[in-house]
Amino acid sequence: MYPNSIKDLIESFKTLPGIGQKTAERLAFSVLDFEDEQVEYFKKSLDDVNKKIHKCRNCNCLTEDDICSICMNENRSNGVLCVVDDVKTIFTFEGMNVFQGKYHVLDGLISPIDGINPEDIGLPKLIDRIKKECFNEIIFAFRPSIEGETTSLYIKRVLGDLSIKITRLASGIPMGADMEYVDLLTLERALSDRKEVE
Amino acid sequence: MYPNSIKDLIESFKTLPGIGQKTAERLAFSVLDFEDEQVEYFKKSLDDVNKKIHKCRNCNCLTEDDICSICMNENRSNGVLCVVDDVKTIFTFEGMNVFQGKYHVLDGLISPIDGINPEDIGLPKLIDRIKKECFNEIIFAFRPSIEGETTSLYIKRVLGDLSIKITRLASGIPMGADMEYVDLLTLERALSDRKEVE
Repeated sequence: MYPNSIKDLIESFKTLPGIGQKTAERLAFSVLDFEDEQVEYFKKSLDDVNKKIHKCRNCNCLTEDDICSICMNENRSNGVLCVVDDVKTIFTFEGMNVFQGKYHVLDGLISPIDGINPEDIGLPKLIDRIKKECFNEIIFAFRPSIEGETTSLYIKRVLGDLSIKITRLASGIPMGADMEYVDLLTLERALSDRKEVE
Repeated sequence: MYPNSIKDLIESFKTLPGIGQKTAERLAFSVLDFEDEQVEYFKKSLDDVNKKIHKCRNCNCLTEDDICSICMNENRSNGVLCVVDDVKTIFTFEGMNVFQGKYHVLDGLISPIDGINPEDIGLPKLIDRIKKECFNEIIFAFRPSIEGETTSLYIKRVLGDLSIKITRLASGIPMGADMEYVDLLTLERALSDRKEVE
């Protein structure tokens, strides 16, 4: 029922996450009102993301260069390494400006049940890096989950003989949360990790 | 904080309706996992919509040709013309397969308060077409609004001396609606347009 090019664009939009038929139709129609330059810019940015972006050789973060800007930034060598399981976590941290050290991105988390082993997520590269660079502390910023804990424990065991402080982000009740809606796992964690009021 | 190409793609996605910063970020990251062909297809479809799609010379519907497939379809010459104020209405009708006549797209609705006059929405072209082609009935399928009624009345007056049946879509309570949530205007219309039970 749509002309072919509109149909094709609807299909393209539908390949994006969370975009269904109706939304794809609305987006495709909006492109009809685009200026030529807008379309060129859109095409170029799609292309650039596809062709120029790759993993930093050092930390696996996304970059257009060989080594990413965070790894290159000498001012950030404060001896703390934050290990994440998803590169987006880095951009969240950077966007909120809450961390001044270096990062390392794992390709997921260990999950024996899904057959995902330490080598599959690039742990050897992380271990090598930790042994080579001089970090005082390693912070695990994994999503709170069994897999996150398995991965943390595994890395801690492997690094056992190095005298590095190994920490993870605190889990608990989010600031401002409505106590009524806190889930059981979070509440259990908040109780077992309770802190003395000082 | 993002590499430039990702930043540019986020900006591109943000120009689409209803796509904010967070969603644009999610969409841009999803493009990282695209195959080369997917990116090419996306770029081509953006380009095609921008370059190939234009208005049908006859009815203003969107088409890649000079005259659209509906205007070209001889089987649809049943003497009924459906006038819409938004081309998307045609695709809705066609998708639901509820109408077998021809269409004409106006470029909006008359709205004196916004300075939109009959010429601004392409009414002269519609009037010419109605006078030239032989229609038995004109159906107005405008969104129910003051502007829709103004436009309907205006066209009816202009066509006054032609003996053509002029109708509009029924307004009223949607099928399956919860009576509790019906708005005042709809209820008033449903009452004044009440039909005898036969």
